[in-house]
Amino acid sequence: MSFSSTLLENAVNEFAKLPGIGKKTALRLALHLIKQPEAEAKIFGETIVKMRQEIMFCKRCHNISDKELCTICNNPMRQQQHICVVETIRDVIAIENTQQFNGLYHVLGGIISPLDGIGPHQLTIDPLIERLSKENTQELIFALNPNIQGDTTIYYITKKLNGCSVKITTIARGIAFGGELEYADEITLGKSISNRIPVVHYVNNE
Amino acid sequence: MSFSSTLLENAVNEFAKLPGIGKKTALRLALHLIKQPEAEAKIFGETIVKMRQEIMFCKRCHNISDKELCTICNNPMRQQQHICVVETIRDVIAIENTQQFNGLYHVLGGIISPLDGIGPHQLTIDPLIERLSKENTQELIFALNPNIQGDTTIYYITKKLNGCSVKITTIARGIAFGGELEYADEITLGKSISNRIPVVHYVNNE
Repeated sequence: MSFSSTLLENAVNEFAKLPGIGKKTALRLALHLIKQPEAEAKIFGETIVKMRQEIMFCKRCHNISDKELCTICNNPMRQQQHICVVETIRDVIAIENTQQFNGLYHVLGGIISPLDGIGPHQLTIDPLIERLSKENTQELIFALNPNIQGDTTIYYITKKLNGCSVKITTIARGIAFGGELEYADEITLGKSISNRIPVVHYVNNE
Repeated sequence: MSFSSTLLENAVNEFAKLPGIGKKTALRLALHLIKQPEAEAKIFGETIVKMRQEIMFCKRCHNISDKELCTICNNPMRQQQHICVVETIRDVIAIENTQQFNGLYHVLGGIISPLDGIGPHQLTIDPLIERLSKENTQELIFALNPNIQGDTTIYYITKKLNGCSVKITTIARGIAFGGELEYADEITLGKSISNRIPVVHYVNNE
């Protein structure tokens, strides 16, 4: 792309470094900011720089945080005995949005995937084991993506916790709400039949 | 969306203000920047702030520029007698990308559209007329979008230039390369027949 301004060109190149943003979209975003008042563009840039400079990871759950402990870990109203194990920060946000979970989290920072060169020691598995030995945790809920890597990770952590009295569960897998049986893949449909739940139980949980 | 960090939340809100960026994409972009080195995120933010603060509009052609005159107007190698009239800066970039035009530009900043409340005086039409009276322009090429507003704008400017010796042309309209006749709209197809060009001429221009 040929620009008559290096200032614009630099901004477009910066936007185009972001994932999923091509040159044309980057140009649209840069031109949009040119049309905005100077103060707004300043706030935009500074907010992002500030976020990157000041953001931390919670010491306890490795979630993103403004302070040493994140707002979830710091909230005494949350059930301290339940820990939900997730892969990324994005999963925490997704689960929080459901408003169905009131416990704490533990962000692994990834998933065991030998093909990608990710082993248990690159993840926050050891801090999780240590955390369980210190905290009075009653239930560990795995909310990992339903694939081989997810299952391997669950298996690895469960093995490590052998002898520990904590209850280990995983989120239910089955046909999604609004999904159609005929389009569901065979594994999901098969698992949803073998893990079927009593209707009484289902109705009570609504 | 519920976040455990106000820093992240602010950054997501800023990204989500951009056109075509929803909350989920904004979150992906913010989390991507968190993963980058601090220096890169700083460059990103600062480049954008700098662009907005320092960018100017070329005094002569109203294109985006780093200085009083843009690089196109400042380039003595370009044909100073040809002025291509476009609606926006984006059109300049699109035409520059074709590498088929070596003249100067004039950015109108919009198009006459009474329904949207845009009249001739909100555009840079008067500066264009003034420019033509000063410069030794031989040809004025309209590269406006082919719709009623574009045609109205061409008609208005042509009327204003009545008596002026400048040659006035418009970019060719017809079936796009790679387009299929059967899917072309009737107006385009009709115009492409009535404005047909001799094959000799066409082959010579290849």
